[in-house]
Amino acid sequence: MTENKGYAFVESTKYPYISESAQRRGLPQPPFELPLEPGAPLIDLPGPAEIDLGEFDLRTAIEQRVTRRHYTEDPLSLEELSYLLWLTQGNKTINEPRAVPLKTVPSAGCRHPFETYLSVNKVTGLEAGLYRFVASTHQLVALRTDADFNTQLAEVCLSQRHVTTSAVTFIWAAVPYRTVWRYSERSYRYLYLDAGHVCQNLYLAAESIHCGVCAIGAFDDDGVDALLGFTPPESFVIYLASLGRVV
Amino acid sequence: MTENKGYAFVESTKYPYISESAQRRGLPQPPFELPLEPGAPLIDLPGPAEIDLGEFDLRTAIEQRVTRRHYTEDPLSLEELSYLLWLTQGNKTINEPRAVPLKTVPSAGCRHPFETYLSVNKVTGLEAGLYRFVASTHQLVALRTDADFNTQLAEVCLSQRHVTTSAVTFIWAAVPYRTVWRYSERSYRYLYLDAGHVCQNLYLAAESIHCGVCAIGAFDDDGVDALLGFTPPESFVIYLASLGRVV
Repeated sequence: MTENKGYAFVESTKYPYISESAQRRGLPQPPFELPLEPGAPLIDLPGPAEIDLGEFDLRTAIEQRVTRRHYTEDPLSLEELSYLLWLTQGNKTINEPRAVPLKTVPSAGCRHPFETYLSVNKVTGLEAGLYRFVASTHQLVALRTDADFNTQLAEVCLSQRHVTTSAVTFIWAAVPYRTVWRYSERSYRYLYLDAGHVCQNLYLAAESIHCGVCAIGAFDDDGVDALLGFTPPESFVIYLASLGRVV
Repeated sequence: MTENKGYAFVESTKYPYISESAQRRGLPQPPFELPLEPGAPLIDLPGPAEIDLGEFDLRTAIEQRVTRRHYTEDPLSLEELSYLLWLTQGNKTINEPRAVPLKTVPSAGCRHPFETYLSVNKVTGLEAGLYRFVASTHQLVALRTDADFNTQLAEVCLSQRHVTTSAVTFIWAAVPYRTVWRYSERSYRYLYLDAGHVCQNLYLAAESIHCGVCAIGAFDDDGVDALLGFTPPESFVIYLASLGRVV
């Protein structure tokens, strides 16, 4: 690297160089979830209290976790999908109205700057296609049910084959202003750190139900954003992970 | 934000704008660990096979985890500290020489760009001070045993009180070239994503032994780097976390 653009980012997000935040300037806190897409069907998921997939030892999950790119043809159940969503972006304060949601993962300043999209390929009871997780009510909203959506996603993930064969691929979009409102430019560090927290929970939760995960940091940013309808810089893909049943 | 330096980083690390990597240019792979500090004493930790702290359910750990900033006076045992190091940066291939270590956490391309430093405050059997974890042999190396080191660290963490009262504070340094060698500028996304994976394991492992964690993204970068002797841009602090016993 000649100019070190990477370290320039680290440098530019040090405290001496960041702007006064919107919160300090008295601007209102942005919402913690995107509005529902008008007319898009909502799908109930088994709620956290209904999910019963047994116990699994934490240390074992951490020790036996490896990146897994080879998945069987077996579908996930809706209960398993609900479990994975719950443990990665679940809202623990769902029945307890609060200004700021408390989720199952940590996020800098509890800003929770993500939306979770799913490219469903093999999940019992769900048509293949694109869905968004609505954490506030623990539901899915169906956005597209074109059967080849997952193939299109694999293409913008630089044709990584494990996307094609996944049961479901998680796509995390950042909505940076939720964090920027409080932390200004330094937030861009936190977006990536927070996405790492989320993806690690996915790895471990998958391990506990005999599934495997492959995190995806190599993708065509513009291609994913266009396919999913994100509108950078207000929203953009930050991380993905394919997931499927393993032998 | 007027110029959006944060999104400029996202933009500049898209594939069309990154350089050919050192790996592609045929340059040798850098080492996965810093060399031992000459003369600094090595301390054996209970090895993974000796650590026996019982089982703990993964889902429970994820569900009950919250950020915890209030710690008791009780020290950690060396076995507990070893457990936390093992589950955050442990080398699973310690007795199996390989070109690339396999760790207990995922890292983009298995590059594992971190070194773990510990500000020890209350750990039975260890003098207070600064230590580095040597993952390749699962040992600690003692770097400083000045009793007020933790106070100095708290200062450069913008005087966050939970550092002062922690049993131990984890300080993760990035050595970016390990990742940059393969992924060029895009690596700077991966450094933060990978640090998020590590810190999430710390949160969950702590929960399983009745400890609590507070991740620290707000710190005086230059102050931490100077105090720890990091040499940006070749090495720099990327994330920290205080940890202590909780009621």
